[in-house]
Amino acid sequence: MTAKTSPMGWNSWDCWGAAVTEETVRANADYMAEFLKPFGWEYIVVDIQWYEPSADSHNYHPFTDLDMDEYARLLPAVNRFPSAAGGAGFAPLAEYVHSLGLKFGIHIMRGIPRQAVHRNAKILGTDRTAREIADPSSICFWNSDMYGVNPSKPGAKEYYDSLMALYASWGVDFIKCDDIAREMPRCEAELRLLSDAVKNCGREIVLSLSPGPALPEKAELYKETANMWRITDDFWDDWRLLYDMFRRAETWCIHSGPGHWPDADMLPVGPIRQVYGRDNRTRFTEDEQKTMMTLWSVFRSPLMIGGDMPGFDRFTLELLTNRGILGMHKNARHAHPVWRRKNGASEWILWAAENAEGGHYLALFNAGEEDGELTVPLADAEIEGNALLTELWSGEESEGDLVKVFLPKHGAAAWRVG
Amino acid sequence: MTAKTSPMGWNSWDCWGAAVTEETVRANADYMAEFLKPFGWEYIVVDIQWYEPSADSHNYHPFTDLDMDEYARLLPAVNRFPSAAGGAGFAPLAEYVHSLGLKFGIHIMRGIPRQAVHRNAKILGTDRTAREIADPSSICFWNSDMYGVNPSKPGAKEYYDSLMALYASWGVDFIKCDDIAREMPRCEAELRLLSDAVKNCGREIVLSLSPGPALPEKAELYKETANMWRITDDFWDDWRLLYDMFRRAETWCIHSGPGHWPDADMLPVGPIRQVYGRDNRTRFTEDEQKTMMTLWSVFRSPLMIGGDMPGFDRFTLELLTNRGILGMHKNARHAHPVWRRKNGASEWILWAAENAEGGHYLALFNAGEEDGELTVPLADAEIEGNALLTELWSGEESEGDLVKVFLPKHGAAAWRVG
Amino acid sequence: MTAKTSPMGWNSWDCWGAAVTEETVRANADYMAEFLKPFGWEYIVVDIQWYEPSADSHNYHPFTDLDMDEYARLLPAVNRFPSAAGGAGFAPLAEYVHSLGLKFGIHIMRGIPRQAVHRNAKILGTDRTAREIADPSSICFWNSDMYGVNPSKPGAKEYYDSLMALYASWGVDFIKCDDIAREMPRCEAELRLLSDAVKNCGREIVLSLSPGPALPEKAELYKETANMWRITDDFWDDWRLLYDMFRRAETWCIHSGPGHWPDADMLPVGPIRQVYGRDNRTRFTEDEQKTMMTLWSVFRSPLMIGGDMPGFDRFTLELLTNRGILGMHKNARHAHPVWRRKNGASEWILWAAENAEGGHYLALFNAGEEDGELTVPLADAEIEGNALLTELWSGEESEGDLVKVFLPKHGAAAWRVG
Amino acid sequence: MTAKTSPMGWNSWDCWGAAVTEETVRANADYMAEFLKPFGWEYIVVDIQWYEPSADSHNYHPFTDLDMDEYARLLPAVNRFPSAAGGAGFAPLAEYVHSLGLKFGIHIMRGIPRQAVHRNAKILGTDRTAREIADPSSICFWNSDMYGVNPSKPGAKEYYDSLMALYASWGVDFIKCDDIAREMPRCEAELRLLSDAVKNCGREIVLSLSPGPALPEKAELYKETANMWRITDDFWDDWRLLYDMFRRAETWCIHSGPGHWPDADMLPVGPIRQVYGRDNRTRFTEDEQKTMMTLWSVFRSPLMIGGDMPGFDRFTLELLTNRGILGMHKNARHAHPVWRRKNGASEWILWAAENAEGGHYLALFNAGEEDGELTVPLADAEIEGNALLTELWSGEESEGDLVKVFLPKHGAAAWRVG
Repeated sequence: MTAKTSPMGWNSWDCWGAAVTEETVRANADYMAEFLKPFGWEYIVVDIQWYEPSADSHNYHPFTDLDMDEYARLLPAVNRFPSAAGGAGFAPLAEYVHSLGLKFGIHIMRGIPRQAVHRNAKILGTDRTAREIADPSSICFWNSDMYGVNPSKPGAKEYYDSLMALYASWGVDFIKCDDIAREMPRCEAELRLLSDAVKNCGREIVLSLSPGPALPEKAELYKETANMWRITDDFWDDWRLLYDMFRRAETWCIHSGPGHWPDADMLPVGPIRQVYGRDNRTRFTEDEQKTMMTLWSVFRSPLMIGGDMPGFDRFTLELLTNRGILGMHKNARHAHPVWRRKNGASEWILWAAENAEGGHYLALFNAGEEDGELTVPLADAEIEGNALLTELWSGEESEGDLVKVFLPKHGAAAWRVG
Repeated sequence: MTAKTSPMGWNSWDCWGAAVTEETVRANADYMAEFLKPFGWEYIVVDIQWYEPSADSHNYHPFTDLDMDEYARLLPAVNRFPSAAGGAGFAPLAEYVHSLGLKFGIHIMRGIPRQAVHRNAKILGTDRTAREIADPSSICFWNSDMYGVNPSKPGAKEYYDSLMALYASWGVDFIKCDDIAREMPRCEAELRLLSDAVKNCGREIVLSLSPGPALPEKAELYKETANMWRITDDFWDDWRLLYDMFRRAETWCIHSGPGHWPDADMLPVGPIRQVYGRDNRTRFTEDEQKTMMTLWSVFRSPLMIGGDMPGFDRFTLELLTNRGILGMHKNARHAHPVWRRKNGASEWILWAAENAEGGHYLALFNAGEEDGELTVPLADAEIEGNALLTELWSGEESEGDLVKVFLPKHGAAAWRVG
Repeated sequence: MTAKTSPMGWNSWDCWGAAVTEETVRANADYMAEFLKPFGWEYIVVDIQWYEPSADSHNYHPFTDLDMDEYARLLPAVNRFPSAAGGAGFAPLAEYVHSLGLKFGIHIMRGIPRQAVHRNAKILGTDRTAREIADPSSICFWNSDMYGVNPSKPGAKEYYDSLMALYASWGVDFIKCDDIAREMPRCEAELRLLSDAVKNCGREIVLSLSPGPALPEKAELYKETANMWRITDDFWDDWRLLYDMFRRAETWCIHSGPGHWPDADMLPVGPIRQVYGRDNRTRFTEDEQKTMMTLWSVFRSPLMIGGDMPGFDRFTLELLTNRGILGMHKNARHAHPVWRRKNGASEWILWAAENAEGGHYLALFNAGEEDGELTVPLADAEIEGNALLTELWSGEESEGDLVKVFLPKHGAAAWRVG
Repeated sequence: MTAKTSPMGWNSWDCWGAAVTEETVRANADYMAEFLKPFGWEYIVVDIQWYEPSADSHNYHPFTDLDMDEYARLLPAVNRFPSAAGGAGFAPLAEYVHSLGLKFGIHIMRGIPRQAVHRNAKILGTDRTAREIADPSSICFWNSDMYGVNPSKPGAKEYYDSLMALYASWGVDFIKCDDIAREMPRCEAELRLLSDAVKNCGREIVLSLSPGPALPEKAELYKETANMWRITDDFWDDWRLLYDMFRRAETWCIHSGPGHWPDADMLPVGPIRQVYGRDNRTRFTEDEQKTMMTLWSVFRSPLMIGGDMPGFDRFTLELLTNRGILGMHKNARHAHPVWRRKNGASEWILWAAENAEGGHYLALFNAGEEDGELTVPLADAEIEGNALLTELWSGEESEGDLVKVFLPKHGAAAWRVG
């Protein structure tokens, strides 16, 4: 089963936008292999515009020229990914990542390049052309590179199959397809074409769908076709977005499980927005970062690091290597919110989950605007009698039928119970 | 804690509408005490219009005269409830029900009788009058008996307190308040007044809110103020309503827990609509009834029998006394849908839950329109390796890492696992 | 034809709210007869709650006792209307108004008094009762006096007929029925019952519908059943409401004509809110009052004076007795907006109409927030060549193929052309 | 003033779709000059895709190659318009049309050709390129030829100016711009750019906006920027579309006037859909065609013939050359619906207008599903006393204070009054 556990990795977007280079990817892969791999982190994902020679920030360049083969398939820009020279594509970079014991992923956009359509490129293995399969009114509203593919046209399936054949030949392990997750029901048939191409390409590849928010009424479609899908628009280091994630997680928690993971988006930790200056770091407080890791983990969202790892400080590294929290991310089952208590500026949120190794997990969040102390009976989460309790961030152990904790505003605690 | 487990009982509505009599209530209480009490059934609830001498069916009589005391408090109609004579109210009937080891409940309408307002009755223990606390534009759209109460008026709190004092003095254990659950946010303050009156009356009383559908965005309000609330409009013996309940249960399952139970409404089983003829029986097939009991139980909805119990046949009695299913109703935790697979006329739905006594529960539904066989790996529900499996309806035991079952259309199976 | 021209009169609401008395009505009738009748003003209308002894302001008293006959028909409160003593009703007051050469009108609420329903009053000339014809869920949301009538019930028609028979016997010439105009389509059948009762009562009575805003998609219904209907919620002396009326008039202008007049509501001029103090006067500037009279007149809205007439100053009296403006109110045909030009803080609006006596009318409004001058070619309104022009407020005459005018902000001018 | 009267002409769409040829245009121009010009018809308009060599029907060919100059300006396809050879554009054809005493018009699409963008064409007279001014997410949803232009980009104004300079040099008198009228408010700034380019090009050109329905709340914008705009999606020979036009005309009638004409779309009369076979003719009955001409004329919609004129039969020619109806189209003022009376299968609609030459017009429609007779007092339209009446279709004259007429279902009559 692909993505039996919720994927953990790094993605280049938060730190490098569309402008990531091979050098940076290799540096991050090296760091992950040395410091994070032992904790379960494994994917190294190159985000959007790797085929654009002129990419330089988080912004897109309308109608810019893209590197492409004769069959409408985009290729890494050699000026940014030198090992792709000579038509090698991402094979050398993937091989390097694999050599570190990690996995390699790329971002793609739904559809076929507009430049291929207007040049009328051929579709591999067919006598069809890009003009015949492109849907002229199916466009992405924030990026001008692609037209959607009309799934009912002869050649459409062959096009998506030809893409996945190329990516499989490179050794790609993870594909984040963009401009698709929230485009439902309009793009449902195109999603099925993509999904089938991934499943049938002969290589195990995780399929991740963006952007969010995905549509709750299409949950079963996402579960059938993909391994993870974004439940939010781009997530950044802003408390309002983090606060909003409690609501999103509440909606989606029942749909988390082996092979299909609602995705709360990247973790903007440590050095982010590096493309604009090396001094940029996350604006989240340490408490907010703990809240984020606790919520993502109890709800088993994929964990994709957004920061440039070689620049991590000690706090960030510890945040991402807490064995208790990562154990919860692995072993929580049936997680769901128990209650949410709002009273003026105070707001507390309790989540509970079964622990696959026995016992339970509790996660408590101070989502309000003031520090405070709270006592929560275990019975709230239907845990009877006394239990052994281990707080995961501090490691503190206790015994009893309740938890009592002081939490600063925007802070969190989590316990392994019993 | 009130309603620590999900309530189980009988309600007079499905079989007798507004026209239930003391004789019938006693007969049902006798039956429950003898045949159902050992399985956990305990509440005997008199539904709407017990204060109306002229009630004769499921229909309401606009502006009909109601029995009422001088303080705007409705009293049982003595022609229908003879033991209420002499101002005794429901005390004698409650005492009888208690004598059988059961509990006694009544239905009330939100607000204050319109007849009390137009006669300008006094509010007990105050110098306020009904006119002063009634909200002239807060009415029920399907029953003409009451005006809503304006919670900001002096006397409003005292009125609700006086109601609960009377009901507590009668020995009432369960109150189903109608015209309130779906009237949010308009009636939020009135709900809080009601809830506080119940909590402070000195007797443990379960508070149940009707009608549905309740508003998902108000889940925390219902959890704070009530013990159960209807997630659907009136549920009857029609497959379309039962099919629709899967969607409702999916929305509400994360909010089930000790003291607060989303309520899928009464079970229209056995002899219903008796007020129109003794030959009327549920139109649900036996498979549909099993589906209903399985879904209500895994999701821990309150179980309120709608049929006239003395007329039960063997199937109905067994349906309601299956120890495996009722064990799931008691011990399921964190229940949620795992997947829902629709393909043409075929549709299968899988639910999973933790078992508080160890292991798990699985429930599988054939919600499609054709019979079929299905194999489900336990891994779908994140249950690893081999396990002992007991199918709850048949009692059949097996061992393995999957369940394989033939289900007729609209049928269900459920397993205790491990 | 009833209301062949757009009605002109006085209504007690703006100055006296629910608390108007016979003395005040007589004083206003006297004033109108002396100063306004020669200009076409003729209706004297007693607004809401004349049947309520305790009325004292613009506020309503929930559930207060009303004067009523045995057939559920409300009667004037004798403490406020002494001539109604002895069951005379409004006959003596109507007779007085008629003696002055004026016409008499009253306000009614849709439906039947709640107190009649709860006392179960009889319906005149039938063996039906108020309970049988009242619709228990049809209420007014801002006044607690009435229930709607269920038009399909036997006795409903007879009830409305009995009302109109009584009003006709009093000599009523004008009925403003409230809680009906915007209650469409819910109250369409009840409106038809009311309309038929008015048409068949044997006396010519103007039927006016409130409150607004009426629904544009029901224009033909209003035209068939009533003589005027409110196109706005209550209009008061606030520029924002006046500004908004341009949009409303644009929507409704095509529906003005003999017998059916979209109604922009009362003119809050001179002394208004007198019930709270004799010093209260309209907050509209003089320019705004001219804008109001110009717009109401070109669009032929009914003109109902809201101020207490005996307290009029010279400006107010002249405002309401400008023969040019009132001529436009009588003779404008096919009026409609020509254009509306908004540019920053400047906004000009041009209306045109045919003059039934030959030639045309033009009305120009400075609806912006700054004073300004504008030249408008007559060709904008499809008036060819040179024409004689008379500005109606100033009486100034000119000749040419354009109008050129300075208007202060919120001001207006109007011309008779050719 | 451009389009001082409501434009009358012929458009190639209804008969030839995207596939019209020069030969056909000339044949229609010849016919118009001989038979229709004396009645006021004057525009000959070449509809969409004249720049597409491969056009063959009403369907569009995604991504097909278009004839274009080096500055992103489309040119007539020489295989279809031979006189355009050698870069002459439409100048020779326009010259021919002018030689007949008629005017020449063309259809354009909002924006800049996608092929120009992907080839990165230059913008005339600037150092800007098509890529710099195209808006990559502004597309037409039913035709793949163009991108919208981003009005805020340097070069955008110059591009639209360069288009109009070219069209003016050809002798174009009428431009129908498509993919713009209903694209508000999204395309408001682009519309202003277009409008300014037309107004400043040095030649008087009528600007017509498509497709509909235009947005009523943007009426003043259309009036400021264009001479006519479509109030409906494509209109064809189907009674339901014609019936629906009464509602649209009611909404828009107040906005008709010199220079600005709400447009009810082409008249599908005589031979239409000729591209699919010479036998195709309008499916409208003769009565429906009279209803259409009557409504379009009283409301002064532009009149654009959709049928292939050389194939006209006698009825069609007479339909379009009735001097009484065309007189109403020229002289009606302030037209508006008077009432609309629906009763079961019967529905009658009355319109009235002033006659600029004195007196009035009345138009009566039997919009119901049964034949019938009706008497209408002139007073309904505020015409007092007796008048001379001339029915425009029959020429019958009468005198009196009413009209009495038998009309077949879907039929119409119209009178000049007084």
